[in-house]
Amino acid sequence: MIGESGIAVRNIRRAEAAHVAELGKYGVATLHEAMGRVGLLAPYMRPIYAGAKLCGTAVTIFAHPGDNWMLHVAAELLQPGDVAVLGTSSANNDGMFGDLLATSFRARGALGLVIDAGVRDTADLKSMGFPVWAKAIHAKGTIKATVGSVNTPIICAGALVHPGDVIVADDDGVVVVPKARAAVVAVAAAAREAKEAKNRERLGRGELGLDIYGMRENLAKAGLKYTDDEATYLKESQG
Amino acid sequence: MIGESGIAVRNIRRAEAAHVAELGKYGVATLHEAMGRVGLLAPYMRPIYAGAKLCGTAVTIFAHPGDNWMLHVAAELLQPGDVAVLGTSSANNDGMFGDLLATSFRARGALGLVIDAGVRDTADLKSMGFPVWAKAIHAKGTIKATVGSVNTPIICAGALVHPGDVIVADDDGVVVVPKARAAVVAVAAAAREAKEAKNRERLGRGELGLDIYGMRENLAKAGLKYTDDEATYLKESQG
Amino acid sequence: MIGESGIAVRNIRRAEAAHVAELGKYGVATLHEAMGRVGLLAPYMRPIYAGAKLCGTAVTIFAHPGDNWMLHVAAELLQPGDVAVLGTSSANNDGMFGDLLATSFRARGALGLVIDAGVRDTADLKSMGFPVWAKAIHAKGTIKATVGSVNTPIICAGALVHPGDVIVADDDGVVVVPKARAAVVAVAAAAREAKEAKNRERLGRGELGLDIYGMRENLAKAGLKYTDDEATYLKESQG
Amino acid sequence: MIGESGIAVRNIRRAEAAHVAELGKYGVATLHEAMGRVGLLAPYMRPIYAGAKLCGTAVTIFAHPGDNWMLHVAAELLQPGDVAVLGTSSANNDGMFGDLLATSFRARGALGLVIDAGVRDTADLKSMGFPVWAKAIHAKGTIKATVGSVNTPIICAGALVHPGDVIVADDDGVVVVPKARAAVVAVAAAAREAKEAKNRERLGRGELGLDIYGMRENLAKAGLKYTDDEATYLKESQG
Amino acid sequence: MIGESGIAVRNIRRAEAAHVAELGKYGVATLHEAMGRVGLLAPYMRPIYAGAKLCGTAVTIFAHPGDNWMLHVAAELLQPGDVAVLGTSSANNDGMFGDLLATSFRARGALGLVIDAGVRDTADLKSMGFPVWAKAIHAKGTIKATVGSVNTPIICAGALVHPGDVIVADDDGVVVVPKARAAVVAVAAAAREAKEAKNRERLGRGELGLDIYGMRENLAKAGLKYTDDEATYLKESQG
Amino acid sequence: MIGESGIAVRNIRRAEAAHVAELGKYGVATLHEAMGRVGLLAPYMRPIYAGAKLCGTAVTIFAHPGDNWMLHVAAELLQPGDVAVLGTSSANNDGMFGDLLATSFRARGALGLVIDAGVRDTADLKSMGFPVWAKAIHAKGTIKATVGSVNTPIICAGALVHPGDVIVADDDGVVVVPKARAAVVAVAAAAREAKEAKNRERLGRGELGLDIYGMRENLAKAGLKYTDDEATYLKESQG
Repeated sequence: MIGESGIAVRNIRRAEAAHVAELGKYGVATLHEAMGRVGLLAPYMRPIYAGAKLCGTAVTIFAHPGDNWMLHVAAELLQPGDVAVLGTSSANNDGMFGDLLATSFRARGALGLVIDAGVRDTADLKSMGFPVWAKAIHAKGTIKATVGSVNTPIICAGALVHPGDVIVADDDGVVVVPKARAAVVAVAAAAREAKEAKNRERLGRGELGLDIYGMRENLAKAGLKYTDDEATYLKESQG
Repeated sequence: MIGESGIAVRNIRRAEAAHVAELGKYGVATLHEAMGRVGLLAPYMRPIYAGAKLCGTAVTIFAHPGDNWMLHVAAELLQPGDVAVLGTSSANNDGMFGDLLATSFRARGALGLVIDAGVRDTADLKSMGFPVWAKAIHAKGTIKATVGSVNTPIICAGALVHPGDVIVADDDGVVVVPKARAAVVAVAAAAREAKEAKNRERLGRGELGLDIYGMRENLAKAGLKYTDDEATYLKESQG
Repeated sequence: MIGESGIAVRNIRRAEAAHVAELGKYGVATLHEAMGRVGLLAPYMRPIYAGAKLCGTAVTIFAHPGDNWMLHVAAELLQPGDVAVLGTSSANNDGMFGDLLATSFRARGALGLVIDAGVRDTADLKSMGFPVWAKAIHAKGTIKATVGSVNTPIICAGALVHPGDVIVADDDGVVVVPKARAAVVAVAAAAREAKEAKNRERLGRGELGLDIYGMRENLAKAGLKYTDDEATYLKESQG
Repeated sequence: MIGESGIAVRNIRRAEAAHVAELGKYGVATLHEAMGRVGLLAPYMRPIYAGAKLCGTAVTIFAHPGDNWMLHVAAELLQPGDVAVLGTSSANNDGMFGDLLATSFRARGALGLVIDAGVRDTADLKSMGFPVWAKAIHAKGTIKATVGSVNTPIICAGALVHPGDVIVADDDGVVVVPKARAAVVAVAAAAREAKEAKNRERLGRGELGLDIYGMRENLAKAGLKYTDDEATYLKESQG
Repeated sequence: MIGESGIAVRNIRRAEAAHVAELGKYGVATLHEAMGRVGLLAPYMRPIYAGAKLCGTAVTIFAHPGDNWMLHVAAELLQPGDVAVLGTSSANNDGMFGDLLATSFRARGALGLVIDAGVRDTADLKSMGFPVWAKAIHAKGTIKATVGSVNTPIICAGALVHPGDVIVADDDGVVVVPKARAAVVAVAAAAREAKEAKNRERLGRGELGLDIYGMRENLAKAGLKYTDDEATYLKESQG
Repeated sequence: MIGESGIAVRNIRRAEAAHVAELGKYGVATLHEAMGRVGLLAPYMRPIYAGAKLCGTAVTIFAHPGDNWMLHVAAELLQPGDVAVLGTSSANNDGMFGDLLATSFRARGALGLVIDAGVRDTADLKSMGFPVWAKAIHAKGTIKATVGSVNTPIICAGALVHPGDVIVADDDGVVVVPKARAAVVAVAAAAREAKEAKNRERLGRGELGLDIYGMRENLAKAGLKYTDDEATYLKESQG
């Protein structure tokens, strides 16, 4: 059950490494489109430094406001190629994660963190090249008093994340690809990118999307009317 | 009428090129002051990368939430030196614009985009050097189902923008200079900058604004009292 | 009294220079922890450019919305090593501070500004290397009509600041160390950093916080249960 | 120009009384639809008590943050049937209006206030039955130091308002009907209401919108597929 | 998959009527506690009038920003005792629901609506006694252009909702009880309420929670120290 | 020190009963003005039901996010006529207070609660007539794990509150009158109210504030110009 506390699942099924590698070739926007426009976390999740990018398998963490205990429990369960993803039981901006935990996570092979809460020591994290997508940057310390869960399904920034799902994050935000769909999405992303490459070339030569995508007729049907002259329009459009 | 849908105006009167060039020499804060402290878009409009700057003439776009169709209509009407400016019929953060449209806009000669909604492919846009000021960064895809308008007056982030107005944007945000006022504002900005240069020099030598601007008498009249000693003040100020 | 207008205190007791220098060695998160997890300003206070850092003594400014007059009064009272800290009588994002005042403040020896309002000319401030932590970036101009106070106690972004307190700010935000506690906090910060250095080394070698901090027993007492198998968990966890 | 200060226009052209009376028969949602889905103020504008409703002609006020001087200037220019509408030069929540100004406005015949800022004495205003739609309820006092304008075009909560336009406000928010369109909109609103009355009756009898509006075919074309069985769906929808 | 479009599931398994009736005896806070502190929607979901309360089975709706088409699809699938619950593909405040749809929903036997978007005609809805919990009140009209889904799992205001789950809403907000847990939660809620009744009586007589719950020893262990005298405390607490 | 944890002060000096009674005659706006426009809590602090009003002496509570333990400690220290005032160590909306604690607080003689966090059981609290001003209404449960403080100075919603200060709250929000200033503020409030009564009468007869307060000359000096005719103005105001 979403929001259940007191559970740490040791062994989870992760998306297959080959699929993860394939998905890592694409950006967040492309994968979101390739999945049928789903899977995005809310746009308040921002990278702590520009240019960060990651693709890995989720180890999920459910934590309570002001309490970062479960991040330590998660550290033990992280494997190379994992991304820690943290959701909370209610809104909180405290700095649950800093350079010590990043050192620990990196030693375990984790690629980064996606946290629907706060993060601190951000200058150190940038120096380490340990990427974090967070709701807030906040030095506020946290306690270790209440257990949450690790590797249970969570909601993070409005998205449902299961342990082992593929997490891709870049400057545009964060997307979750369910492990069962990883292979299919990788194929769809490749197809989309190929199509976009062609369109990019045509658009770059000055062709219009109106013509490439054949929009003119539909626009007219939808009611778009062209007016040659601004002055005429302004006179006609009263009020 | 603001918010009218279904109209695309082909030919608009743009601010004169010489005035645009002149206005491009100044920053947003200077132009806002030179106009009499008006013309700013709301401060939630932020550049997607630091150091971006543009000055051009507005091609206005009115769009509906989650629908980026009109950006394609606008592409055809953009001319070299234009800036696309998009307002919406209600608040929306979806990623209406990305690297394909940027490729198209650039091929038409556009200098950048000001969008009261979301933008995506931000790493690509930064690589291209195509500047965008936006309300949000969000990979969320959009549809092409409902017509809005192009080159009608719009409200963008709380500011009224007419097609052909001059748009200047930098790290401080975005300002709109009405085309009819472009010449006058350029003159006023130059005067302001000249005056500020002198004051900057004096301030840099350690002179005080209190003296340069002759504020001491007015401050006293307005009730400011100096206390030499912190301890005395704290004793007197109870509660 | 907090919020009293019309007072400028000329001579304040500043934290001792040796303590300020000592505190300047530590980051905001470390000092916040060393003080017993207090002293932070709200996380909406962000640096205008990444990598900025300062440590100095507060000259406090109390200002009214849309009015930056008291910043000029403060300029005269700033001494080398000071940090200007501004709180307002009600929420305001106007650009109260720009490159001219920064030139003046720097000429007086000030190290930077912490402002619970807006700032402008941010590209210039970055070029000058004059760091500002602010609630907003906004080019909106301000007036000089109503007196506030300088060097009285203020509330800035939810924190109480007395003149002469030590202000430390970095990429994580801003912390206030009361002048009376500066020496004690410097010692505590050094102790914390030493301890953290050891733990960082152990964590970097792959040891777990669970073991270093001896958390396993407390986690079990608090109710954490490990499940070896994800499938079993999902079957048991209905709903 | 939007945002120009220092002007008070004594005589404005108001929408015709008969049109105003006619528009007053309809709710905000109906008028917004009748106008072609335009004219709404942002939804943060809320009535200070439930059940308030008004319809009148706008006397516009442009004010600066924390300064309510222009409300006194407006008082003199208010006529019976007017609604005061206030926009600001930058975001502000101060309590610019209270029971004294309400007493004055009522004595001049004003019907209520729409203010993109704060209001206070709200219990008194409710007792008086003087309705206000505001961005905030805040007791914060304001000054009288800087002139704005009265009866110039303003932007209020994202909408353009000209003096003399018709303002209708109810529990759903606020809509502006440009004076030049008042007659046409009243006719369209009546037509819409008549049509809705018929549909309401049919829907109340259990008929479906799907059938009344003939949506089934378009839904199928747009890709909607019906599945009889939840279990089947869940099995097919992996991930 | 969460966020899949184009599906309407006709027949869903609903929580058993007896369990729903039992759950309807309790408030949102009690049920949230009885479930182990889970199941709440985000607190921005507010009732459109005070005193509203409902308990029913969810018919879920997935919709796109600015598009209310799927509410008509849902109308046909609503049964007596159902509550419509709507989540969106991205943040949107448009008024997707008003008195016509409420008339239709009521005719189908629906008890109310929980909508992570806007609602309008709120005065009419209050008159009808048709309760709605919404993110916003907004008259903004919507289109019917893009299909979403009905009766697939959705995320609404940060909570996962499956069709047929029990929805309870009151002045405190909204809670979701998964259908598989309805019976167990009803029992736990009854037990909690019985215990609380006893404690309420004791607290009402002036007994302290400190004693009833035996907190004094734990507070002391956790470090709480009592000081008899305020003056002594203030002297000791420097800084 | 603000934000110190682990202290409960048993005996505090409260404002004198006669002064409290006197202050209780006035509204929040009047007292804020009578103090020189200070003392307000942030406007996000709203009463949970309309028409609530209280005036009493503060028992202060400092709590951590998601933890309501200190409210039980406070219960023992509340005396008849007190108002509990709670600030937190970081932003939190959890429902820290409900009908059980209200029963306890009322049994101790407390008049109400001001809480910079969430509250629940709001329908019960309204039935009991126990007023609460809060940042959020949220059913989210809290833990009892970390000690904060009772009766130490706190910051609540941006205002500094000392134990024993006078708290007045009504539909306009919350104001704090420092105990040392209670007598003086009561006198100033009476004077203000007397003056306002006269002005209210004059304004009610149709006299203008412009004349009563003699504003016309200052407005002219400040640059206000009257224009008789809207058409002329619009022609002159280009851009």
